[in-house]
Amino acid sequence: MSFSAVSTLLSLLSIDHPIVQAPMAGISTPEMAAAVANAGALGSIGVGATDANGARKMIAAFRERSDRSLNVNVFCHSPAKADAARETAWIRRLRPEFERLGATTPRTLSEIYRSFLVDDDMLAALVVARPKVVSFHFGLPSPERVRALRDAGIVLLGSATSLDEARRLVAGGVHAIVAQGYEAGGHRGVFDPDASDDRLGTMALTRILVREMNVPILSAGGIMDGAGISAALRLGASGAQLGTAFVTTPESLADDGYRRAMASDAAHHTVMTRAISGRPARCLANRFTAWGADIDPREIPDYPIAYDLGKALNAAGKGANEPGFGAQWAGQGAPLARSLPAGELVATLVAEMSSDRGE
Amino acid sequence: MSFSAVSTLLSLLSIDHPIVQAPMAGISTPEMAAAVANAGALGSIGVGATDANGARKMIAAFRERSDRSLNVNVFCHSPAKADAARETAWIRRLRPEFERLGATTPRTLSEIYRSFLVDDDMLAALVVARPKVVSFHFGLPSPERVRALRDAGIVLLGSATSLDEARRLVAGGVHAIVAQGYEAGGHRGVFDPDASDDRLGTMALTRILVREMNVPILSAGGIMDGAGISAALRLGASGAQLGTAFVTTPESLADDGYRRAMASDAAHHTVMTRAISGRPARCLANRFTAWGADIDPREIPDYPIAYDLGKALNAAGKGANEPGFGAQWAGQGAPLARSLPAGELVATLVAEMSSDRGE
Repeated sequence: MSFSAVSTLLSLLSIDHPIVQAPMAGISTPEMAAAVANAGALGSIGVGATDANGARKMIAAFRERSDRSLNVNVFCHSPAKADAARETAWIRRLRPEFERLGATTPRTLSEIYRSFLVDDDMLAALVVARPKVVSFHFGLPSPERVRALRDAGIVLLGSATSLDEARRLVAGGVHAIVAQGYEAGGHRGVFDPDASDDRLGTMALTRILVREMNVPILSAGGIMDGAGISAALRLGASGAQLGTAFVTTPESLADDGYRRAMASDAAHHTVMTRAISGRPARCLANRFTAWGADIDPREIPDYPIAYDLGKALNAAGKGANEPGFGAQWAGQGAPLARSLPAGELVATLVAEMSSDRGE
Repeated sequence: MSFSAVSTLLSLLSIDHPIVQAPMAGISTPEMAAAVANAGALGSIGVGATDANGARKMIAAFRERSDRSLNVNVFCHSPAKADAARETAWIRRLRPEFERLGATTPRTLSEIYRSFLVDDDMLAALVVARPKVVSFHFGLPSPERVRALRDAGIVLLGSATSLDEARRLVAGGVHAIVAQGYEAGGHRGVFDPDASDDRLGTMALTRILVREMNVPILSAGGIMDGAGISAALRLGASGAQLGTAFVTTPESLADDGYRRAMASDAAHHTVMTRAISGRPARCLANRFTAWGADIDPREIPDYPIAYDLGKALNAAGKGANEPGFGAQWAGQGAPLARSLPAGELVATLVAEMSSDRGE
């Protein structure tokens, strides 16, 4: 590990330990982020699934609990292109599942999340609230938006799955890169979900980015404990981002079905699926991933239009006591998840990092 | 890192450094294995593409150059099932490529390699030659064959891509596991190429196997330098196996086209393909992987029958100055490959492991 690489990151983010709790829209909470921040790591909230008002409330809820650094994550996808024929066909395709669950099938779908690329209210809210860190997923915003955030003194992180994406992020003004390996749970950060994906694992991606880039690299994907974090640092990363490790904390919004699935054999069989939301995301193997296994991506509506139906199907499933249609995002390290409170988890990770064995 | 995990492995294999040069049938050579062995790591040869006589000659060639430990790797796939209709259709499908290259299209295909599962001559040759180590890929042989090797005092390694495969290997009598992550180059060791594949990355797979198994684990996939090896040890692995790092050594049989491709942008875009050999294998992006991108696996003849045609196409390509049909196996760490002689590469890896920065 490079001591200076780590200390540069700690100083950049004003944190004590080189650990980032991944922003997980719909799962992470201001309470989780505050517990993590108070334990000396970087707590994160995802505001990609809410609007400026929702973001303001989440930031305020964090600040009631912590005065440490907060990372606010925004989704920078190309806004969805509606396609009525494709959406109608998609609804028709999923109708038998709704019917089996005794639920009403939605008749239309909408773009349930607004991309940060076009959300002026969210930009204004962040510039005013000035969280320590803003992080980008699925791409990066325009130079004007990046400049507004930088001028407000905000540190910028961007998620990259390849050397090309990392270079675009740094050219576009981010301060550090989250190297998201193919192992990682939840939405894969690829800028273009229709482009071919080299599926780089955390080990190779981290080492390539460390060797080729001149900004701090944070490893993400398959890292669940202090040994994993130490391994990432040994690869030259400045820190590590963990998401799946926090899904099973009490501060998480994961429901009972999700938590039971995390503790089941499904944790050994995560699947990269596009059928739930319209973008590739890694999920515990469940009924939804099995249903989506052989679907041609061209038949799936754009993200997040497809997610409108995916969420409706999950709600229908829950109403019928069938948790298998949930967006149960998880990385390949899922079998190693623990259920400690978030602050205790951070303290445990730190203790494991400094232990000799890392086991 | 666990000092005792590493020292157990060093003592088991009678080597000085926790590094294995991967057996790469058709690429690695007795000269490479001897240079690696003389530098204190484990040198390997692959005999899956030859017969007992060929194996005896390779072992003798190694022993002329080194008295250190040698690993002899055998392929333990289910013997191919011939299917004349599928093979004829496959030949027809590739005929335009042969014609474009001005070459004659083969009229029939055969099972060019014999599986170790049914090769009594190979078993007898190994029991007599008694290399320090025999390693299994694609599965494991019958209890009787394992017993014959163990009774000869041979240490057994097995390649696993999942916890289930690792458990089967240990139940079947292997002494240590090579944890092959999805990043790894060349043939993926999955026991059943038709079963669903969880595609575990090196980081997650290593950590899960270290936590669940009681035998030494060697990490493989995406590891190219001392930092990568140290990271694997930090995950609790007892050592690391590197293949792609040795492809570009002077002792390798890689031809000029392969070496040029390794130094090109193709190294950033490796592809898991089944079209070349009949089993999934990670290859530099080239004309063959592009051609095979959208093919239904059920149309591909069994391994290694498909490989008979793949090798013929490569030969046709080379005759027409088109290197893009080669089996240019490489892992995701390919952009980090160097061209040092194999012994110098081992010395460099060892020096990098003990350096503070690992860069």
